[in-house]
Amino acid sequence: MNAHAVYTVLDLIGTFVFAISGAVAARQRRLDLFGIVSVAFMVACGGGIVRDVCIGAVPPAGLSNWRYLGVTVLAVLITLAAYPKVRHMHQPVLFFDALGLGVFAVAGAQKSLLYGHNTEVAIIMGMVSAVGGGVMRDIVLSRVPAILQHEIYASAALLGAAVQVGFYQAGWLAWWTPWAAMLICLVIRLASLYYGWQLPVFTGRRAPPPRPDRQ
Amino acid sequence: MNAHAVYTVLDLIGTFVFAISGAVAARQRRLDLFGIVSVAFMVACGGGIVRDVCIGAVPPAGLSNWRYLGVTVLAVLITLAAYPKVRHMHQPVLFFDALGLGVFAVAGAQKSLLYGHNTEVAIIMGMVSAVGGGVMRDIVLSRVPAILQHEIYASAALLGAAVQVGFYQAGWLAWWTPWAAMLICLVIRLASLYYGWQLPVFTGRRAPPPRPDRQ
Amino acid sequence: MNAHAVYTVLDLIGTFVFAISGAVAARQRRLDLFGIVSVAFMVACGGGIVRDVCIGAVPPAGLSNWRYLGVTVLAVLITLAAYPKVRHMHQPVLFFDALGLGVFAVAGAQKSLLYGHNTEVAIIMGMVSAVGGGVMRDIVLSRVPAILQHEIYASAALLGAAVQVGFYQAGWLAWWTPWAAMLICLVIRLASLYYGWQLPVFTGRRAPPPRPDRQ
Repeated sequence: MNAHAVYTVLDLIGTFVFAISGAVAARQRRLDLFGIVSVAFMVACGGGIVRDVCIGAVPPAGLSNWRYLGVTVLAVLITLAAYPKVRHMHQPVLFFDALGLGVFAVAGAQKSLLYGHNTEVAIIMGMVSAVGGGVMRDIVLSRVPAILQHEIYASAALLGAAVQVGFYQAGWLAWWTPWAAMLICLVIRLASLYYGWQLPVFTGRRAPPPRPDRQ
Repeated sequence: MNAHAVYTVLDLIGTFVFAISGAVAARQRRLDLFGIVSVAFMVACGGGIVRDVCIGAVPPAGLSNWRYLGVTVLAVLITLAAYPKVRHMHQPVLFFDALGLGVFAVAGAQKSLLYGHNTEVAIIMGMVSAVGGGVMRDIVLSRVPAILQHEIYASAALLGAAVQVGFYQAGWLAWWTPWAAMLICLVIRLASLYYGWQLPVFTGRRAPPPRPDRQ
Repeated sequence: MNAHAVYTVLDLIGTFVFAISGAVAARQRRLDLFGIVSVAFMVACGGGIVRDVCIGAVPPAGLSNWRYLGVTVLAVLITLAAYPKVRHMHQPVLFFDALGLGVFAVAGAQKSLLYGHNTEVAIIMGMVSAVGGGVMRDIVLSRVPAILQHEIYASAALLGAAVQVGFYQAGWLAWWTPWAAMLICLVIRLASLYYGWQLPVFTGRRAPPPRPDRQ
């Protein structure tokens, strides 16, 4: 009961922070009010909707539970009202974004397990919950998704989901296991930002410019 | 029975008009015949397919009912045969597009209600039915979706769906309620075109150029 | 039993080849290791995942069966280790890609039939299984999907799926019917590459530059 309430609060915090990130990106692209709400909702709930469709939880919670839309609209209003300030709040936004990443990864993996799916489905779905919305944002804004290009972002979500699933499959279901999984994701994400960790990129020596590859 | 037949006819008209809009966009981008049919089908049926997957109506009607594909192919053939004319028929295309918008929004909301979903799901799914195909078209043609950027388009669909769901939840199920909801969507869309109504865009005074936002 | 084993092997070969194609494209775009694995997995399994969601086979096999992810990771490692060679192996890659196309089209159509869906669903889902991953790759890499623009690619998959479904609906269920359908897809794809066959493109004489079309 209590744990459930805590989860709900964390889930709404994650939604709120991701919606702010979407609203800022949409505002920068000069979308109109409807476009800003749409992109914010997509970032906040898109990953969860894809997860729910894949694990057979229809209708997706992001659509059927009004709280998510409500929190998104609230986040958009705050972003627009305080835009000059929000735009420069780089550090806090990154921190809360990393927190949302951890929450969504762990909660998404947990939900997939509760629906009876196996380890691989749960880990991938945890990651998709966490990063799917950001990928959709980049797709509709017509740019190559940031997470495919640099930084340790999706990998941190993948690790958080894997730790949570590992605890579950090992039968360690203490109250602190989800928190540990979230914390691992959060710490890795923040450390990679702070120390500039990157996954390897394979550039080769002076590769010729990319040619359009055939199908 | 009769109402059902009328709905089917309207649905096919909406499909036809949306397919023409997709075929014109694909033809302008010099896609080949297969590409034109694909994009036309995507515009005409894509929103409905996403709706059906989200409300658990699989396989989606757009795939399992041959009429939709048939109407799409017909629309493509007519568009290609009469291209120089169709391309300049701006006014009628906009009118029929607005009609299709209203039909799809109301029918999509109604279908979601019939599948037992709640108010919020029905309203969002009505809007997704109406605008999802256009968004997909813009995504595969690699541009920022038009509906996020200007004009009152998705908002009109949202309102039409909301009115239909409102009638339904209030128990007003007269023969004319869906027509009223469609008419409201149609009138708002046409009025916004005629008078140049727009939702607010937040440009601020000389904002610095958008910088790539972090995840 | 035996036929099942053969199918599984072919399916994994198709996955492997498509994953290589995705890894090469992602490597050329300088994505990081995670991005390369993601795009490779998307090309290899994306079409099948969309098919499974549409036919109600959740969770999608690409997610619940670890073999697909394993083969993808293997393909990525080989591609990265032997990149200078793989990049120039244009001919073999095209051959195996055409083979994967045929396998996925036929297997996708067959799976849809086994789930009890009708002819149209099975044919479209066969094609989507075969080309969906490539379309997703192009969408996340922010370019107009290659298959919409040139060459006989999706059309070959459509034909292979249609032949398989035709055999099935006609009750011709000999051991060789799937092979015949795959072979037809393969031959048409290779012949179109060799002879430069194209579907018609409608350019008109000196059309004016495309203007942004209205919704």
